[in-house]
Amino acid sequence: MDEKNGEKRKPSNAVIRRLPKYYRYLQELVARETMRISSHELAAALGFTASQVRQDLNCFGGFGQQGYGYNVANLRDEIASILGLDDRQGAVLIGAGNLGRALLGNFDFQDCGFVMLAAFDINEKIIGQEINGISVFPMEMLDDYSKRYHPAVAVLTLPPSAVGDIVDHLSELGYSGVWNFTNRDIHLSNTTLEVENVHFADSLMALRYRVK
Amino acid sequence: MDEKNGEKRKPSNAVIRRLPKYYRYLQELVARETMRISSHELAAALGFTASQVRQDLNCFGGFGQQGYGYNVANLRDEIASILGLDDRQGAVLIGAGNLGRALLGNFDFQDCGFVMLAAFDINEKIIGQEINGISVFPMEMLDDYSKRYHPAVAVLTLPPSAVGDIVDHLSELGYSGVWNFTNRDIHLSNTTLEVENVHFADSLMALRYRVK
Repeated sequence: MDEKNGEKRKPSNAVIRRLPKYYRYLQELVARETMRISSHELAAALGFTASQVRQDLNCFGGFGQQGYGYNVANLRDEIASILGLDDRQGAVLIGAGNLGRALLGNFDFQDCGFVMLAAFDINEKIIGQEINGISVFPMEMLDDYSKRYHPAVAVLTLPPSAVGDIVDHLSELGYSGVWNFTNRDIHLSNTTLEVENVHFADSLMALRYRVK
Repeated sequence: MDEKNGEKRKPSNAVIRRLPKYYRYLQELVARETMRISSHELAAALGFTASQVRQDLNCFGGFGQQGYGYNVANLRDEIASILGLDDRQGAVLIGAGNLGRALLGNFDFQDCGFVMLAAFDINEKIIGQEINGISVFPMEMLDDYSKRYHPAVAVLTLPPSAVGDIVDHLSELGYSGVWNFTNRDIHLSNTTLEVENVHFADSLMALRYRVK
C-alpha cells in the first residue's frame, strides 16, 4: 500500500518509535564491545517480544542470520541510516529559558541527527550569551538567520503563551519540523511541517498509575 | 489472566500510555464547554482508530452509550480516577539545575497526581533558594526528609555521572517510583521501585526520520 520511492513498505509509526530504543541499546553494546546479539536477547533487554524484534527489523530488509543473530555494529549503523542520524540537519532553539538552556547545555543533538546552530530569545539579559558554544540572538533576527542558513528544525522551548502563530511563520520560513516543548499540542493540517510534541505530563501520569 | 483485586482485567501498558492523551484532550474539551463526544471524534482528534478508542475505554467498563457518545466531563473524571490523578502523592526533585528549575517553575505536578514537596542539590549556590515556592535543601538532608515526609516519587534531574547508586538508596528510603530524566536508562530487577525513563533523544530521532 504505502510505497516510498518504490522501495520497501513504509514502516509504521509504532516501528519508527521503537527504532531509537534499538539504536540507543545497540550503542551501549558497541561501547561494551559486544559483537552479536540474538533477537531474544534484544527483546529481553528492551521489553519487546522476540517476534516483534524480528518483524521490526524485517521491515528494513532484516539484518539477522538464522542461528547467528545480529551483528551489533552493523545493525546500529543500519538503524542510524534509516533514521537519518548520519545525515545531520541544522536546528535552532527558540526560547533560551531554563528548559532551553538545559537542552543546549546537556543534550546531544548530534547523536540525534542534528547540528544546533543558534538560539533566539526576547529577553535582553539572555541575548548575547553563549551557552555551550551556541549564541543567543534576538528574536527579530530569526527571519534573516533562517533565510540565510536554512535550518530544518526549530526547537520550541518558549512558554505556551508566547507561541502565538509562530508555527505558521516557521512553515513560511521553510522549516521542515518543530520539536515542541511548549506543552501545548500543535496540530497542523495545511502545512508540510512535521511536529513532534513532547509531553512530560503523559510520562508522569503513566508513572502515577504504576505507583498506586 | 491478569486479575487485579478480582476486578476487571489489568489494562495493557499500551492502554495506560494512551490514557493521559485522552485525559489531556478531554480537559481541553471541558474548558471549551463541549458536553459530548463520539468515539469517532475522539479517535480523529488523537490519531487513534475509533475501534481502538472503544476498546481502550471498554477496558474500564466503557462509559459510552450507543448513538450518544461519551459524556466529556464524566469520561475525564473516570480516566483521572483510573490514573490516580485525584489522589495526589508527594514528590521531591533531586538536582535543581536548569532542567530541574524548568520543571519546578513551569510543570504542573498537581495535574499529574503529585504534590511537589522539596528539591535537593549539592550546589551551595542553589541550596537555600526557593523556586516557585519549593525550597532547595542540601542533598545530605534527603534521608531525614524522606523518612519524615514519605514522598512517593523522586524526580531525577541530575547529571548521569551523579546518579551512582542513588536509585537503590531511594528504594531503601521507601520511595515507590522514580521519574528519570538523567538520560541513562534505569533497569531494576530486585526492587519494587517503578521507573519511568524520559528520553528526549527518542523523540528527536523520530522527528529526524520524518523530516527527511
